[in-house]
Amino acid sequence: MQSFEQFFSLVNTAIHNVKLPNVPANLYEPIAYTMALGGKRLRPILTLMTCQAFRGNIHEAMNAALALEFFHNSTLVHDDVIDHADLRRGKPTVHRKWGEETAVLCGDTMFAIAARLMAKVGPEHLPATMNVFIDTSTRVFEGQQMDLDFKFLTDVETDEYMAMARLKTADLLGAACRLGAIIAGASPANEQAIYNAGVNMGLAFQLQDDLLDVWGDPEVFGKETGGDIMNNNKTFLLISAIRLADDITKTELRRWLNDPYALREQKVPAVTAIYERLGLKQLTVNKIEQYNAEAVKLVKSTGMNPDDADRFISLIHSLTSRNA
Amino acid sequence: MQSFEQFFSLVNTAIHNVKLPNVPANLYEPIAYTMALGGKRLRPILTLMTCQAFRGNIHEAMNAALALEFFHNSTLVHDDVIDHADLRRGKPTVHRKWGEETAVLCGDTMFAIAARLMAKVGPEHLPATMNVFIDTSTRVFEGQQMDLDFKFLTDVETDEYMAMARLKTADLLGAACRLGAIIAGASPANEQAIYNAGVNMGLAFQLQDDLLDVWGDPEVFGKETGGDIMNNNKTFLLISAIRLADDITKTELRRWLNDPYALREQKVPAVTAIYERLGLKQLTVNKIEQYNAEAVKLVKSTGMNPDDADRFISLIHSLTSRNA
Repeated sequence: MQSFEQFFSLVNTAIHNVKLPNVPANLYEPIAYTMALGGKRLRPILTLMTCQAFRGNIHEAMNAALALEFFHNSTLVHDDVIDHADLRRGKPTVHRKWGEETAVLCGDTMFAIAARLMAKVGPEHLPATMNVFIDTSTRVFEGQQMDLDFKFLTDVETDEYMAMARLKTADLLGAACRLGAIIAGASPANEQAIYNAGVNMGLAFQLQDDLLDVWGDPEVFGKETGGDIMNNNKTFLLISAIRLADDITKTELRRWLNDPYALREQKVPAVTAIYERLGLKQLTVNKIEQYNAEAVKLVKSTGMNPDDADRFISLIHSLTSRNA
Repeated sequence: MQSFEQFFSLVNTAIHNVKLPNVPANLYEPIAYTMALGGKRLRPILTLMTCQAFRGNIHEAMNAALALEFFHNSTLVHDDVIDHADLRRGKPTVHRKWGEETAVLCGDTMFAIAARLMAKVGPEHLPATMNVFIDTSTRVFEGQQMDLDFKFLTDVETDEYMAMARLKTADLLGAACRLGAIIAGASPANEQAIYNAGVNMGLAFQLQDDLLDVWGDPEVFGKETGGDIMNNNKTFLLISAIRLADDITKTELRRWLNDPYALREQKVPAVTAIYERLGLKQLTVNKIEQYNAEAVKLVKSTGMNPDDADRFISLIHSLTSRNA
């Protein structure tokens, strides 16, 4: 049985061994660069962990696992173009290093590479896994568009926010688990339970991301904190603040949101202070714990071996006690 | 047996009937808009024509045909972002109408829709057709990157140009034919021959595109002519001009290429005059005719029914006598 660290190292070796063409160098170098930037490798690890927990052969799940990691990274490359981001994991983004044109093509090609890896899944599981892959990728794009749309809306409900987070982030973690279950030949009930566990994990993960952007350690986080505040991003925190603030605080908050010339060193601490005054850190932590508890319950409901369940449970908790 | 016009109308009806979700509206409206902009529907028609010529059931080939049309349009949406183009088929481009962020996501989603359509191909043909789809899409991106790279090179050989055109444009037409052949259950030899016919057709098509940008009728072409000249795009014409010009003409040409302030109304006629002086229109037309002749020979080599062969042959000739 593999430990978490062994899964991580297996995935990294497999990513390193994916053979990319040499030409055009300006297309494949940024892809190799992106895949070598590292990261938690959460999605492929979830696929392998689930496959093992349901007594499947993890080597049969590797192509699906890699497909998700290439797909996830393709969305990051395009996302950085959309957000005009300069840094990703502390290094220059693809569009900063190679230009926006190449970044668009690079993301497209990584999506195609992901589909090629998914198409290598054994024939008995192939139609099912390919459909999960295609449905999930579509949901990610829908979630990203909803997120874009939120920027132009004054009021977003927390329910709408959670629906967006489910599409943009959580469903992919659910799909990572589901693919491992399908390849292991798990029962439909267990496939559904572990998918739901992944989704709950993903919702907690997204909320933790919102927290880190405000209270994270920039050294560990790999980017400056306060980005969401500066961009008026409709995070769970901002949406909750608008909903919960009294009239005086709401006026203060709106003033910061409507001032395009606000200085970072003034706006970020001021909005953070409002969040703190409204108790939003604790509110969000409570919500994270609810999603985590649900994920743990779902993992246990599958009746998997206690050692495997424990590994899932410690992963669930580590994701939301992370600093980056 | 279907006529060319019937194929066109079948494809348009099928595109219209592809059910897109309603939300997020800002994601699916630009997709519906793009697919309704029209166009020749060349790729899906080639798939259906090939399927019929090899005695397959064209309804079984429809999902593959639609997949190619969605994929092709996804590349156009991203291409317009890359080229900062304002117009496509005489209408505002997606990124002009909905913003660059949405245009990136819209192209990504159309690629996923294409993959979903391709995944609906009957199970006996599915691994083969999906692999053709993935390989072909990757080649298109490689060709687009080569094309980008050419902008920064002073000297590009015509061979390199044709290799780029094959990846970016011609291989997709070859794949359109190949998919129809696979679904019809054609012999491997015929599958290869019709693929090669499609590639030759595509090379002629790309050269015709280069000609139209200089000598096309803007009314019919749907965009202003001279765009390639203004952007110093390394078209077959420019590459041939650099290769064939005497020293005086080469100096004149380099002066236009190196003058970032050149006015359109001066640069376009001046460079066009150089092309005409060098006989490049005729040279290109001759090359187009060679590719067409090869395509016709390949079509005939399959031994398909003469009526079907005639339809291919008239399509081949119509593509390079087109004005748009």
